[in-house]
Amino acid sequence: MKTDREYMQLALDLAASAKGHTNPNPVVGAVLVKNGIIVGTGLHRKAGEPHAEVHAFNMAGSHAEGATLYVTLEPCSHYGKTPPCANLVKDSKVARVVVATTDPNPSVAGRGINIIREAGIEVEVGLLESEARKLNERFIHNMLTSRPFVISKFAMTLDGKIATHTGHSKWITSEAARLKVHELRHEVDAILVGIGTVLADNPSLTTRLPDQKGKNPIRIILDSDLNIPLESQVLQTSDAPTIIVCSLDKDHPKATKLVEKGVQLLSVSKNDNGLNLEEMLEKLYEMGITDLLVEGGAEINASFLRANLINKFQVYIAPKVLGGRKSKSPFTGTDVDTMDEALQLDFDSIEQVGEDLLITAYPKTGDNK
Amino acid sequence: MKTDREYMQLALDLAASAKGHTNPNPVVGAVLVKNGIIVGTGLHRKAGEPHAEVHAFNMAGSHAEGATLYVTLEPCSHYGKTPPCANLVKDSKVARVVVATTDPNPSVAGRGINIIREAGIEVEVGLLESEARKLNERFIHNMLTSRPFVISKFAMTLDGKIATHTGHSKWITSEAARLKVHELRHEVDAILVGIGTVLADNPSLTTRLPDQKGKNPIRIILDSDLNIPLESQVLQTSDAPTIIVCSLDKDHPKATKLVEKGVQLLSVSKNDNGLNLEEMLEKLYEMGITDLLVEGGAEINASFLRANLINKFQVYIAPKVLGGRKSKSPFTGTDVDTMDEALQLDFDSIEQVGEDLLITAYPKTGDNK
Repeated sequence: MKTDREYMQLALDLAASAKGHTNPNPVVGAVLVKNGIIVGTGLHRKAGEPHAEVHAFNMAGSHAEGATLYVTLEPCSHYGKTPPCANLVKDSKVARVVVATTDPNPSVAGRGINIIREAGIEVEVGLLESEARKLNERFIHNMLTSRPFVISKFAMTLDGKIATHTGHSKWITSEAARLKVHELRHEVDAILVGIGTVLADNPSLTTRLPDQKGKNPIRIILDSDLNIPLESQVLQTSDAPTIIVCSLDKDHPKATKLVEKGVQLLSVSKNDNGLNLEEMLEKLYEMGITDLLVEGGAEINASFLRANLINKFQVYIAPKVLGGRKSKSPFTGTDVDTMDEALQLDFDSIEQVGEDLLITAYPKTGDNK
Repeated sequence: MKTDREYMQLALDLAASAKGHTNPNPVVGAVLVKNGIIVGTGLHRKAGEPHAEVHAFNMAGSHAEGATLYVTLEPCSHYGKTPPCANLVKDSKVARVVVATTDPNPSVAGRGINIIREAGIEVEVGLLESEARKLNERFIHNMLTSRPFVISKFAMTLDGKIATHTGHSKWITSEAARLKVHELRHEVDAILVGIGTVLADNPSLTTRLPDQKGKNPIRIILDSDLNIPLESQVLQTSDAPTIIVCSLDKDHPKATKLVEKGVQLLSVSKNDNGLNLEEMLEKLYEMGITDLLVEGGAEINASFLRANLINKFQVYIAPKVLGGRKSKSPFTGTDVDTMDEALQLDFDSIEQVGEDLLITAYPKTGDNK
């Protein structure tokens, strides 16, 4: 390992290892190098714990003097749970700082860098920037919009079907793909489905990983009129917290029963398309939810699609062709007349997962990004 | 280039260059190597022209003596338009023959190899066999089933939609993908659509490549009751031959008019699912059609799917999400109740074509392969 790029890649790899554990904070990695030797490494492991730079400087001790600091995100300039890292860097006597990307919040971006530059330390910005921004896509979206980052995930056959006409869908994908979905659940703050899915499948929506160590995301059920049966699996709030989003008042009799079961109710207004999803997202973010995995069904998916609220698509394609006039598609909702009205995406990656393919894509012009 | 594998790969590459030009024959490549020098190369360019081995021996002349022959398909043992290549090899005094794969026709497979072995020449079989069989998948299918090789091709959005509720589909995919479809049309003997597609889009179904050199495939229209308008583009038989498959007798008045326009009519019986596709395929093969590109629509696609007659899938996926309750899926037809009843495939390759993805897949248990 000898180049700036390689050291920054190491810092990114350190950061990536904590993905899903630092919410609401970003993941950050830092590497200190002096005379070609790595003298300090660090990463931010969890909100409330030290920042990446602190760990790196602790390890380096006096070796930090004259070293180069590689850090995946601009050092912070504000007093939060910990003092500002920019001051730490300023006082460290490092010779040079290489930053992958600036603070996403436009109103603070550059301040940390300025503090360091004003101390006479050379700062370079932008090395492996797109990788660094992708790694913190959730955090960047949070900072820019004050809403959770929304991931739409579905599994379909090669002819675009998520279930037969009877609703049967077990299993479209292979075990390897289903395991990977549980890993994704483990990484996000919350998972959202519609009441239709609860009524049809009665899912538990917990994370089931082989080592039993999966973190359960908060379960969010869109259920405008509180039609959820009281014996539903998602109401077992000892497994994981459950939020039901509805348009009813909290003193509705069914609401009282649900609250007694430990469920949290979130009332939002309605608009022409049903529950006001923008309002819901803003409230969920205020409740501390920074990312949200939308797992359907097709009507819910379509509501998010039509409101242009999906920030990322994760689509599993199974090597199967189903056919059928009434078999189910991943999105329903309002029809558009021409192909130009489709949401335009950029494919990001295609991965083989067991027998299946996983396609990751982002909206081309993410108004919400 | 030094290893058996490298020389065989060269022979395969030579063969592949003629793909689509040798029908109904297979593509074959041959390489002769003596003392580490390539002394002869050849490929079968076109039915009626010399076989690959003949070109290679012509080039090698007396250098063939003691050489190794690499050939992608077992040398033929029968007198056809040219004398059997096995005899040529036998008389050539080569020291060794490496064959990628045997003749697919079980009743003749091995005969060519036997002739050569009986002459005391060492023969090895099976080097790069799966590549060689894939290269001649069309020919192998023909030999085993006496039917054309059927390719189902469609383009869809990432949510599995081929058109909006109005039928609008121009364009789902990028120009690069559409160009590649024209290259595929150029390679096949025939292209098939249903009358629905003719009525909706009035396509010409010709090959449009930038250099104007594309070969037009025969156009086949499934039109049970001869509902095709006489002014349809596909009836311009000066562009390309057109076959209309129907269930009516040839002395039906509309039939007479179509024949006057130069169209060829093919009458087949009906079964519970409409036109008897097995019967149609057998007749088309007798007419010399060895492969068939099925370009839809969804009902036609489904008929081939339900009859288990698709040998290969070529699916373009565009980076778009359409949604909509009434938007169109690639296959309609009879519904099945459970996911297990879906046709099981193996993904073969995933390719980026412009902005789009091209997924190639084969049925897992191809009864018709």
